[in-house]
Amino acid sequence: MMKLRSSPPSPFGRKVKLAMAILGLKDRIEIVEANTADPSDDLRSQNPLGKIPALVLENGDVIYDSSVILEYLDFLAGGGKLFPQGEARYLVLRDQALANGMMDAAILRVYEKRFKEPKFRDPAWDTYQAAKMDRTLAHFEANAPAAPKSADDIDAGTLTLACALGYLDIRYNGDWRSDHPKLVAWLDAFETAVPAFADTKMPAAPVPDNDPAPLR
Amino acid sequence: MMKLRSSPPSPFGRKVKLAMAILGLKDRIEIVEANTADPSDDLRSQNPLGKIPALVLENGDVIYDSSVILEYLDFLAGGGKLFPQGEARYLVLRDQALANGMMDAAILRVYEKRFKEPKFRDPAWDTYQAAKMDRTLAHFEANAPAAPKSADDIDAGTLTLACALGYLDIRYNGDWRSDHPKLVAWLDAFETAVPAFADTKMPAAPVPDNDPAPLR
Repeated sequence: MMKLRSSPPSPFGRKVKLAMAILGLKDRIEIVEANTADPSDDLRSQNPLGKIPALVLENGDVIYDSSVILEYLDFLAGGGKLFPQGEARYLVLRDQALANGMMDAAILRVYEKRFKEPKFRDPAWDTYQAAKMDRTLAHFEANAPAAPKSADDIDAGTLTLACALGYLDIRYNGDWRSDHPKLVAWLDAFETAVPAFADTKMPAAPVPDNDPAPLR
Repeated sequence: MMKLRSSPPSPFGRKVKLAMAILGLKDRIEIVEANTADPSDDLRSQNPLGKIPALVLENGDVIYDSSVILEYLDFLAGGGKLFPQGEARYLVLRDQALANGMMDAAILRVYEKRFKEPKFRDPAWDTYQAAKMDRTLAHFEANAPAAPKSADDIDAGTLTLACALGYLDIRYNGDWRSDHPKLVAWLDAFETAVPAFADTKMPAAPVPDNDPAPLR
């Protein structure tokens, strides 16, 4: 049995959980929660970066990051499902990288509040990261994917975009919704086409401003 | 003619430049320097994340990040050169992700000095990122790749590791060298096997502590 190290709110971990469901691999992978903030968790020996998700294979090899795991699961499922072949492949990978980057910026901003005392929070840094998110949302709004009719229409790019928007829902109060109606409609269609998206949804939980945890 | 948006010190851009040389694609791609700190640079419309490298194709499509560009160049060169097929592929992709992650941590720490006033620099954050780098170096020292005899022995994982170590040389005074003799020997062999590595080397230029630029 493979083991997925992840945690429920992780948007990158959610990518893998959706892929497991879409590709029919849920019964081959046990989900073992990981705590990235706990130095005694095995995670840092499994992935020296201390990041989730990480997939522990049956032979003990560990693979990461989320994009590599998605590709590996696609391979196990026969290939060509979440990743098209030929020229089209690289635009899907590009869209995945773009949605990953929006999540990275969103998480960096959350970490400023979660792990840093207010005196260490640079407003210019926050603005700089927020601008990456804004430009990415504007790009995807102007280039909104076609509404998927079923999970067969999902690829690694659109799967990642859905997880990125879902993260903005839980950590940023869904503030992105008012200015991006095409993406809202698209995400609704995604949720209908991919039941696992609702199954992995977390309640909104903005990170408090004044209660940072120690960074260990 | 394709255009590569990058800058000389970027370790992620260097990945692409090495791949261009190894794959024989240098005459199909013009390098157009990009300034990630300049909002008027076309970069932010080419890549909403404002990150380099980004590859502008002849039809105007833009692809990123560095790992996606590497795979696209490998595809253009016939495939299977920097990325093996089958199970082995996913360990190469994992090693690439790990070396990418070490560069990300290294760059985050440099950005703290380059763009933030000293009062905003949290020592715990720096220590946390440094630990990711230390664990990754220890992992690669304990699992040092075989010395390449020629560029035919290079894959996306080892190519990225070389660029990561090269970045530690220019931004961290090569401090990694004393404790990682196997990696030093391996990097020497890499440089002999891949002449483009020497061609893309930058002089050491640690970022000054007390002269942050505005983050725009």
